[in-house]
Formats: sequence, structure tokens, C-alpha cells
Amino acid sequence: MSAEGAWNEAGLSKGRLEALTDGVFAIVLTLLVLDIRVPEIPPAMVSEELMTRLFLLWPKILGYAISFVILGVYWVGHHAIFHYIRRSDRVLLWLNMFFLMAVAFVPFSAALFSAYGRQPTAVRIYGYNQLAAGLCLYAQWWHATRGHRLVDHDLDRRVIRAAGVRILTAPALYLGAIALASVQPVLSTLTYLLVPLFYILPGRIDRHWGGGRGLDPSPPRRSR
Amino acid sequence: MSAEGAWNEAGLSKGRLEALTDGVFAIVLTLLVLDIRVPEIPPAMVSEELMTRLFLLWPKILGYAISFVILGVYWVGHHAIFHYIRRSDRVLLWLNMFFLMAVAFVPFSAALFSAYGRQPTAVRIYGYNQLAAGLCLYAQWWHATRGHRLVDHDLDRRVIRAAGVRILTAPALYLGAIALASVQPVLSTLTYLLVPLFYILPGRIDRHWGGGRGLDPSPPRRSR
Amino acid sequence: MSAEGAWNEAGLSKGRLEALTDGVFAIVLTLLVLDIRVPEIPPAMVSEELMTRLFLLWPKILGYAISFVILGVYWVGHHAIFHYIRRSDRVLLWLNMFFLMAVAFVPFSAALFSAYGRQPTAVRIYGYNQLAAGLCLYAQWWHATRGHRLVDHDLDRRVIRAAGVRILTAPALYLGAIALASVQPVLSTLTYLLVPLFYILPGRIDRHWGGGRGLDPSPPRRSR
Amino acid sequence: MSAEGAWNEAGLSKGRLEALTDGVFAIVLTLLVLDIRVPEIPPAMVSEELMTRLFLLWPKILGYAISFVILGVYWVGHHAIFHYIRRSDRVLLWLNMFFLMAVAFVPFSAALFSAYGRQPTAVRIYGYNQLAAGLCLYAQWWHATRGHRLVDHDLDRRVIRAAGVRILTAPALYLGAIALASVQPVLSTLTYLLVPLFYILPGRIDRHWGGGRGLDPSPPRRSR
Repeated sequence: MSAEGAWNEAGLSKGRLEALTDGVFAIVLTLLVLDIRVPEIPPAMVSEELMTRLFLLWPKILGYAISFVILGVYWVGHHAIFHYIRRSDRVLLWLNMFFLMAVAFVPFSAALFSAYGRQPTAVRIYGYNQLAAGLCLYAQWWHATRGHRLVDHDLDRRVIRAAGVRILTAPALYLGAIALASVQPVLSTLTYLLVPLFYILPGRIDRHWGGGRGLDPSPPRRSR
Repeated sequence: MSAEGAWNEAGLSKGRLEALTDGVFAIVLTLLVLDIRVPEIPPAMVSEELMTRLFLLWPKILGYAISFVILGVYWVGHHAIFHYIRRSDRVLLWLNMFFLMAVAFVPFSAALFSAYGRQPTAVRIYGYNQLAAGLCLYAQWWHATRGHRLVDHDLDRRVIRAAGVRILTAPALYLGAIALASVQPVLSTLTYLLVPLFYILPGRIDRHWGGGRGLDPSPPRRSR
Repeated sequence: MSAEGAWNEAGLSKGRLEALTDGVFAIVLTLLVLDIRVPEIPPAMVSEELMTRLFLLWPKILGYAISFVILGVYWVGHHAIFHYIRRSDRVLLWLNMFFLMAVAFVPFSAALFSAYGRQPTAVRIYGYNQLAAGLCLYAQWWHATRGHRLVDHDLDRRVIRAAGVRILTAPALYLGAIALASVQPVLSTLTYLLVPLFYILPGRIDRHWGGGRGLDPSPPRRSR
Repeated sequence: MSAEGAWNEAGLSKGRLEALTDGVFAIVLTLLVLDIRVPEIPPAMVSEELMTRLFLLWPKILGYAISFVILGVYWVGHHAIFHYIRRSDRVLLWLNMFFLMAVAFVPFSAALFSAYGRQPTAVRIYGYNQLAAGLCLYAQWWHATRGHRLVDHDLDRRVIRAAGVRILTAPALYLGAIALASVQPVLSTLTYLLVPLFYILPGRIDRHWGGGRGLDPSPPRRSR
């Protein structure tokens, strides 16, 4: 894919890195539903029991929705920074590989969290996983923009900084949540739930970027 | 993928949104077959029992075929509207994420329906799932075409309306089927089976679009 | 993907049809290995038993290799005809969906075959599955080339015919194998094993095409 | 994907070969995590036992990380050689299919190795699997570059040779590890762990390539 396009730029194409990433996300997202199983009820009791048994599945269905949103935040973030990244190199490929390693681990840490959400250990592991994913994403952005290595050489420094701040906000909050895990696990949980919302809802930060060229590239790009 | 092509237009490329969607559909489609298991028969009884045991698998095989067709309808619909959508933005990415959340849930609701198809609860859950997927698809089209936000600015309003009507027809019928679930579950089931057929078979609606530029873009597009 | 490229031609892009197909194949291929499980042996007996237990896995490993090759034949065939197909339409999308339905069913029918390979029923079901996949592939080629509907209008008729014959050879042989299943199941099995080989090894048919523009497009294409 | 771009060159597009490969890698990588299961602990004992039970998962988590890295090495290698390969043919498609067959087998041989790592048989099977993957990758490079068959006709012979040496280094080391398996299984294991590191860390070989156009294509490519 992107055969010709990519060659116009020096360096390794970024198309396959994106394809591998999209594939991993697609599978992780889809595997989440496998955890929700149709209840097996003896025929005679179906009409009485079905509603109750399905009701018991709600925590799993909620977990499905939350994990979908969390992974969605990472995917949108990855998409956004690769909007600016023009090519890849060996270091970027491997940083992305470690990012995917953290992403593919989310189903495990999310299941652990939903099973033992009151245990500081489970709360902390979940937080570390999110932290790792966030830092790997930031590492890619840092590596790509350092000296405009893999981005356009005239990409505005304010975009680079704003995107960096935005990517790092989540890990910083997660770090706080991890520290609170043994004292106030409920507060940690609340942080985990609110962070994704912050990334979905376009808020003040979007308006702040509105004038220039933000991470969410709605305004027209300059011609090249 | 689609590196160069996408940059000609302002805004975020739509290629990765399509790639993630194709990936999720590919996995959901393929996972459906995992529900059909080879029967385990003691060696001495294989020749007598195999036929009978395989015959008992028919409901599952039928369910496999029906789910394949239902998901096919959504995939073709997604493909058709993204034929006109030129770029993406944050809102579209998230609307699509919720669309995928509904699509990835189909294996569960379909399995529930095939296990407890006479229970109004199962019939309704299946219907709500289809409704959610249909509405998320429509929301994407609505968001993209509102003020020609993410489509060509000269895209014919009749195409926009015709496509919208076509996408909304299924949710409307599903809504009816859900309402009937506690009174006439058989009628609901019939609706579920007939709606996909309506989308596969090119009918009067295709001819009606034939003259202009319909949702199924067989006629040549104007040059840009 | 293939954003700009595809628009140069009238009609729906073929890129997503290919992406969905590649995704389904990738998953089906990878799921095959899940059938091979690491034997669980009590620690005290590992050094004596491991070799024997692994040896017992050979039928499954052979089945893995054979299914990989069979699916490979379909994938290469799909790739080859879509080398010539320029765009898609609603009918092609659905023919492809039914092709994928048959392809995604191969893990089941192959497992059935490897478990009960001496039963005419299992032999026949496997054959029907292969037959369905082959015919769906042919139907796509037939639909696309009829009146040069979805291929270049100057595509040589000999290429169209030669490709058609090549695609139909397998289903014809499978039909024979199915007919023989109740009389000579061993002969059917042999057919199943040899047909893929015929498609891997470049034989007389490749040389026959060598002069013109064959289905395997090694010679340079005319400029457009 | 890559519709137009690919046609500029004679021969079959390489885009779908890459897409299938990316898909298989994405799935294999993601399936690895399914082996790590959330421990089931009776509610009364959770706070005491959770830490211990999670600690027991460390071998599996380590295995997850190692397999991720090993598969990453193959994916980066595949990406690197297809940076130079311009088109594909039937032989390349099938060599890649056998490469994928070896890659998709890694989860099994890695699980076997992590379960019975002290048994020469398990050590050897793991080595043979890696050997097969490495040789299939080399075979693709050999086939593509022989007479510059599928690469640019002016691709520097030193690049061809350097890439070949780099790809063959791993299989050569694995061959040694296999030979040592019955005498010094620990030394074999060490080799398995160190080989991927050699491929991640850019070392002397990268500097040696630095001047010309190495396998890791950081320097600008000549215009075409």
C-alpha cells in the first residue's frame, strides 16, 4: 500500500507501520467481545431466568464499552501524530512495536481490573499498562520531531509542543492515579474513567489550537 | 496507506479509518465460524452417527450464513458512504468507533438470538444492536454531509438525501420489530431476516437512482 | 486506502474489497495454528514422553500445512483476477462476500475432514466447501469480465478465457472427487491433495500463457 | 490498495502481499496475550493471594514480551526487504506464504519452549521454526534480487549482498543453537535470546552501511 506515494520522500514508508497498528487495534477491539458469553440456561427455566442472567452480564458489557473507548483514544492519538509523521526509521518501527505490546496487553489488564477493581495491585497494574502505552506513544512523537527528523522540516514548533503536551497529559494523570492506588483506589478508578472522556470531548484545548494548526488537523494544511 | 493521495485534501486522511473498519469486519466475520465445532464421536459409532450429528449443526451453520450477510450489509453500506466522504475529523473517527462497537457486538447478540429466539428479551436485544449499528452509520453520514463538511462541496443534495433514507430504512424497520417483540416475536424474526435481503437485491430504489449519481456509484463520476 | 488512485476510474474503488479479503485470509490462516496445542505432561515424565506426544501432533501439523496451502491457492487466485479488475460494484462486493463465507468455512470443513477422513460424508462436505469457494471466485471473474464490465475495455479475450478455465479447473476436479466420495474416498482425498499442487507449480499452462499476457502477469503490461 | 501506483511498474503489485503479511503479524502478535489469563481467586482470599498469583504469571508475561520482539524482528526484516522489492510474481507470493506459515507457527513453538525449555526436543523445534522463517525470508530476497528480477535494475549489488548477509546471520546462529541443543541447551536458549537483540540494536553493521544505501534506508534515495 502507498507504494508510489511513499517513495517521494526519502526513507522508509510509514504505510506498513500504520497497517500493522490498525490490524492490532482491530483484533484487540474485536477480541474484547469474546469475554461476553451467552448464558446457558436449561430450557424449562429460560423465560424466567434469561432477563436476570443477562442483567448479570452488565459489568462485562460496561467493561467492553470502556475498553473500546480507551483503545479508541490510543488509536485516534496514533492516527493524529502519524498525520504529521512523513516516514519511518528503525527506531520508530521498534518504538511502535513496544507501543503495540502495551496496547495488546490492555485486554488482560482491563479484565484484571474489572475482576479485582478494589485491590490496589490490580488498580496499579492497569495504570502501569496505560502509562506504558502513553509513554511509547510520546516516545514516537519525540523521536519523530526531534530535529524534525521524520516530519516536514517546516512543521510549526507550537504544533510539536502542543501535541506533546496533549499526549503526555494522560500518562501524568495515570502516574498520579497509580500513586493513589494504595490510599484511594476509588479515586484512581475515577481518574481512569475520566481521562478517556477528556480525549473524546473537544474542549478548551481544541479551541486554543483552533487558530493555528492543531494536532487535530481540521484547518486546511499549507500547500507543500 | 494512501499517503500522498490524502494530503491533497485538507484534513485527516480517511484511509486508516477504513483500514480499522475493514480489519474489525474481517475478524468478526471470521470468528463466527469458531462457534461451529467438529462433533466428537467415539470411533465405533462414527459411520452411524456422523450424519445425524452434522445435521444438528444446521442451526449454527444457518446462523453463520445470516450473520455473514447482516455484517456484509453494514460493510457494503460503510463502503458506499465512504465513497463520497473525502476526509475525516475527530467526530467522524469517534462516530465510527461507536459504529465498530456495535458491529463487534453482533456475534454476541446473534448467538443470543439463535439460542433463545423465542424469548422477547433476546429478540429485543438483537434488534437494539442492529438499531445501534444502523444509527451510528447514519450519524456518520449526517455529520459528514452537514454543510458538505467532509464531502465534495458540489455533491448533489439528492444523493445525500437518498443515501440517508436508504441507511435509515433498516433502523426504522428494526424499531418496528423491537416494538412487536413481546406481541409477535415471529414477525420480528421475519423482519430481521428480510431487511438484509432488501439491501442485497438491487430493487426499485437502484433504478430510481440510476439516472443521477446514486449511493451505489456505478455511473461515471464527474471529473474534479 | 487507494484514495486518489481509485477515483481516476469511474465506479467504486476495489481497494477495500481487497483489504477485507486480505484481512479474512490473514485471520483464517492464523487461526489454523490454534488447533495445535502444547501437550500437557506431568513433570516427572516429560523427558520420556515429550517426543512421543509431539509425534502424535503430526496429523494436526500436516493439516495446518495443507490448509495453509489450500487457502494460499485461493488468495493467489483472488489476487491474480483483481490484478485485472479495475473497480467494483454492488454485485461484485456481494459475490466476494459469499466467496469469503466459503473461505472462512474452510477451517471447519478441514478439521472435519482431518478427524473423519474415511467417512464419505466428511469427504463430501470438504469437497462442497472447496467447490463453493471456487465457484464464487469464478462468478466474480465472470461478472467482472462480462462485456468488460469492470476490467479494462481492451483486455485480451484470451486472457479472460484462460483465467476462467484455470479458475474452473479446480471446481471441476472437486466435483469429480465428490462424486467418487462414496465409492472411492481415497481417490477423492488424493484429488484434494493434488489440486493445490497443480496451482502452485508453474506448469505447461504458464508456458502457454508466456507469449501473451497471462493470468500471472509477469510480462510487462501495455501502457495505458 | 496502491491501485494506480502499482501499475506503473510491470508485474503484480506487492501491496496485497504486504497487506496479508501485516494482517498475519497483527493477529499472531495479538493472540499471544490470550495465553495470559486472569487468575480466579475465591473472594475471601483475594487480598492475600492476588500478588502471589500474579507473580506466577511472570514467565508467561516474559514469554509474551520475547515472542513480540522475535516476531517484530521478522516483521521489520520483511518491511526492510520489501522497501527494495518493486513488484511480485507467483514464486514470491508462495515463498511469502511459506514464510507466513513459519511465522504463524511461532506461538506454538514458543509456548512449547516456555513449557519445556530444558528438553532438547523443545529447544530444537523452536530453533527449526526460527530457522524456517529466516530461510523463507532469505529465499524471498534471493528470488527478488537474482538478476534484479523484482528490484530496481540499478540497485547496488553491495546493498543486495549486505542485506542477504544480515538476513542469513540469524539462521546461521540458530543452526548452531540447534546443534548445541542436546549438549548445551542453556547455550541454545541464550542464543535465542541474544539474536533478536542483535537485530534491534543498531550496531557496527548500521554504521558500515551508513555511507551507501543500506538495508535500513535512512539516507535519501536517488530520484527515479
